[in-house]
Amino acid sequence: MKAYRELSREELLNLNDELERAFDIVKEKGLKLDMSRGKPSVAQLEMGMGLLDALDSKSCMKTAAGMDTRNYGLLDGIPEAKKLMADIMQVQPENVIVCGNASLPIMYDTISRSMTHGVMGSTPWCKLDQVKFLCPAPGYDRHFAITQHFGIEMITIPMTPQGPDMDLVEKYVSEDPAIKGIWCVPKYSNPQGYTYSDETVKRFAALKPAAKDFRIFWDNAYAVHDLYEDRSDSLLEILGECEKAGNPDMVYEFASTSKISFAGAGIAAVASSKGNLDFMKKSMTIQTIGYDKINQLLHANYFKDIQGIKAQMIKHAQILRPKFEAVLDILDEELGGLGIGEWTKPNGGYFISFDAMEGCAKEIVAKCKEAGVVLTGAGATYPYGKDPKDSNIRIAPSFPTPEEMAQATDLFVLCVKLVSVKKLLEKTA
Amino acid sequence: MKAYRELSREELLNLNDELERAFDIVKEKGLKLDMSRGKPSVAQLEMGMGLLDALDSKSCMKTAAGMDTRNYGLLDGIPEAKKLMADIMQVQPENVIVCGNASLPIMYDTISRSMTHGVMGSTPWCKLDQVKFLCPAPGYDRHFAITQHFGIEMITIPMTPQGPDMDLVEKYVSEDPAIKGIWCVPKYSNPQGYTYSDETVKRFAALKPAAKDFRIFWDNAYAVHDLYEDRSDSLLEILGECEKAGNPDMVYEFASTSKISFAGAGIAAVASSKGNLDFMKKSMTIQTIGYDKINQLLHANYFKDIQGIKAQMIKHAQILRPKFEAVLDILDEELGGLGIGEWTKPNGGYFISFDAMEGCAKEIVAKCKEAGVVLTGAGATYPYGKDPKDSNIRIAPSFPTPEEMAQATDLFVLCVKLVSVKKLLEKTA
Repeated sequence: MKAYRELSREELLNLNDELERAFDIVKEKGLKLDMSRGKPSVAQLEMGMGLLDALDSKSCMKTAAGMDTRNYGLLDGIPEAKKLMADIMQVQPENVIVCGNASLPIMYDTISRSMTHGVMGSTPWCKLDQVKFLCPAPGYDRHFAITQHFGIEMITIPMTPQGPDMDLVEKYVSEDPAIKGIWCVPKYSNPQGYTYSDETVKRFAALKPAAKDFRIFWDNAYAVHDLYEDRSDSLLEILGECEKAGNPDMVYEFASTSKISFAGAGIAAVASSKGNLDFMKKSMTIQTIGYDKINQLLHANYFKDIQGIKAQMIKHAQILRPKFEAVLDILDEELGGLGIGEWTKPNGGYFISFDAMEGCAKEIVAKCKEAGVVLTGAGATYPYGKDPKDSNIRIAPSFPTPEEMAQATDLFVLCVKLVSVKKLLEKTA
Repeated sequence: MKAYRELSREELLNLNDELERAFDIVKEKGLKLDMSRGKPSVAQLEMGMGLLDALDSKSCMKTAAGMDTRNYGLLDGIPEAKKLMADIMQVQPENVIVCGNASLPIMYDTISRSMTHGVMGSTPWCKLDQVKFLCPAPGYDRHFAITQHFGIEMITIPMTPQGPDMDLVEKYVSEDPAIKGIWCVPKYSNPQGYTYSDETVKRFAALKPAAKDFRIFWDNAYAVHDLYEDRSDSLLEILGECEKAGNPDMVYEFASTSKISFAGAGIAAVASSKGNLDFMKKSMTIQTIGYDKINQLLHANYFKDIQGIKAQMIKHAQILRPKFEAVLDILDEELGGLGIGEWTKPNGGYFISFDAMEGCAKEIVAKCKEAGVVLTGAGATYPYGKDPKDSNIRIAPSFPTPEEMAQATDLFVLCVKLVSVKKLLEKTA
């Protein structure tokens, strides 16, 4: 294929006409597809229905240690669930608190608590003139929404295939005491699917923050979410690295079974040092008498152990892989060599990240919507919803079927071509 | 029986010896009983096990409106659960958000959000020099713990059998703009079991707060928790009263099924005006993608409707009633006419409130503990854990069996007598 940049104005005009006609035909079809969010598909949810048989009216409702899960108490979760979540995060159960139905509220509560009560004795952030967070981007919009909601200033850090630009991270964190945190999705990052390299993790662990209450928010959302059995990424365990580097209290790690069992009805956990957990519990014990232990027991009964989790993830991968491949095949075939877009090929996670020509992302998303395919809003992957290059688009292949995914991607590449041609025509006008 | 105050010093000394001997005998028994918290008993939990059969791997997991409860979304709860919780609170479903596993976190989050984001546009409370709450007492220790945790100054309001002293409430609320809220357990109050009279509810609804962001925290924890079918209290519905009085936004109501289904694994809800709910949702939509809808569906499937709830509550009452009666019978028999204590005889709820002679509560609780019976700490029913008269003791009869409850109460009355005699001896010394 010839790169679009090399086409003459006349060739571009002809191509534009051709693409407009093609677009009108697709638009006629009246598609109604959603690839905006990382939602599990119905097939994945059906596959997990056995979970609901893991407890019934005849079940023993006690933990192995004899705690009745139907009654009040046990703030940090039943031992069985702690072990399960610890193994997912590759940490020790004593470093884990199992919480409610999803990890997002744990992250929100962690920020909220820091605002009102500080971090292990530090000044509450709401009493400070300035609080800043580093935000590797493209990143997860719901992270940025939390920090924005609390009026925390967000500083964009560029992402690389090895993780955030660590030169920049080190500089900011060591120089500015107003920087209190950084959002990370270290494995199969949202949306690029990058996994932080060992060197990146070690540099994180060795940070020398100007602020004593600086914390790494390590959202290990895709810890066991491999797409391929033969080529999965591995992530260095950060709690241990931080401890080795003399920074035992510097990280909060988050994980959940939202994309292992059921989305929003799973169990979630935070892992951290004893110092951090003790401080968290001072608030948690006021906030709740305990999280839902029956759901914790349900998960422990069903999955048994980390092998049960891994077996389930292989089944998830079997459902997800064809969708990722449908997208990637079409992108390769239709856009390869055209020089109007670049995209990632992750080994796991829930997203493919697409970078269009500068200034094209919003228009591509709008065009897709016009023809019935909803994508994540352009800009959503950047702090304040503003992608400075208007280039990044997050593709979420999980929810539609592979056939729908192919249809949606056909439309997507058509829109990428169309918008790119128009952009090039503007330039040559 | 002769009142202890009328006994001579010699009679008191003899009685003291007799009681000491009796105490030593009970102490020998090595009791291990807990009547400290309002925990459902094992019999109650067993009675609810059918809940776990309400969903299995063959179940339809969609709501009647077609929403898949296994996937993300639907912030304010599935319609079936909204209706159920609305009926418990006698409000409309559109005034309800169904949240997570218990109501305490909703209350905590409501205070926390007010600290960081204010109330419907008001200044965040953390930016104010002073924030105060009215605390009818004796009251619920976990309410007071929340306000204390956020550094909110607590002002004790005396309780009467008709509810809080409304003259005082009206005066404080209308005069002091720093007063931002009041904690209420309006039906079968914790610990006295009082239900607010219609007049009290109307006076609440007609308050003229100096602070625009003043809110009533209406913890309707025992809305359907009657002990007797033939003499239950009824509570005027406050949302409607507030609206009629021109104060539609003045109240947040909270409820849960913690003592209907399973403690800490139920569903919980907040009811309020559209204005309040819209404001809450601005934060909630950042805090969570949605609460556990599978547990909501489980509850809706099992209870079906308010009739199902009421039927369950009759069964709970059958288990609870003998325990309350065991306590009350012994109190009547052993302490009646002695003038060393007064107690409530509630028609519902989870507690009996006992008022000892001034300056005796701590010592009574300590004596009980010495002989193996754990009571709620004396003072816990007052702000800052400080009962100015050191008089109130909360008795929670729900968890032990009726036989254990009788044993525990035998010890309790013995300790009340013993400590009272010693107190009177001190006075005559």
